[in-house]
Amino acid sequence: MIAKTPPPPYYAVIFTSLRSDGDNGYAAMAHKMDELASKQPGYLGMESVREELGVSVSYWDSLEAIKNWKNNLEHLEAQRHGKEFWYTHYKTRICKVEREYEL
Amino acid sequence: MIAKTPPPPYYAVIFTSLRSDGDNGYAAMAHKMDELASKQPGYLGMESVREELGVSVSYWDSLEAIKNWKNNLEHLEAQRHGKEFWYTHYKTRICKVEREYEL
Repeated sequence: MIAKTPPPPYYAVIFTSLRSDGDNGYAAMAHKMDELASKQPGYLGMESVREELGVSVSYWDSLEAIKNWKNNLEHLEAQRHGKEFWYTHYKTRICKVEREYEL
Repeated sequence: MIAKTPPPPYYAVIFTSLRSDGDNGYAAMAHKMDELASKQPGYLGMESVREELGVSVSYWDSLEAIKNWKNNLEHLEAQRHGKEFWYTHYKTRICKVEREYEL
């Protein structure tokens, strides 16, 4: 649930989105992409929650790992569908995690 | 909903949490802290979603602004309550947003 990431530094991709109406294949593809992401080199974990707003944070060991995932062919196809059918707005922020604390 | 942040670089605090059972004053305090955070110097916006897992991302213009908010007296009191009553686990990650893209 809370991703078990290694000590910083590492990287986070914060994907915040607003969905359009209807499923249109979204749920199945989102599940597939979560599975596929978890198999990519450099993947460290994910935290994902949706109400009206969706916030998904994925964690990676390098900017190169993020770039490779962004350019994965199946993921590129999902991104195209997302822009056309699933999201009215989204924002993707690429971040360097510099420090952390926890309970 | 999706925070209207300025061009990078800026900072993000990713707060991921699991709640304990019962409200115990949580909802009112969470609302109050969101209000109070939004009035702090250097605050840029917030995106917050909760299912079982809660993910709240707040955005700030500097590490100093994050430090000042962390040490705000009312916020310190809320943090103490959080550790004792509201959360079973949480993780706070301090990040530098390096780049972004959007739809």
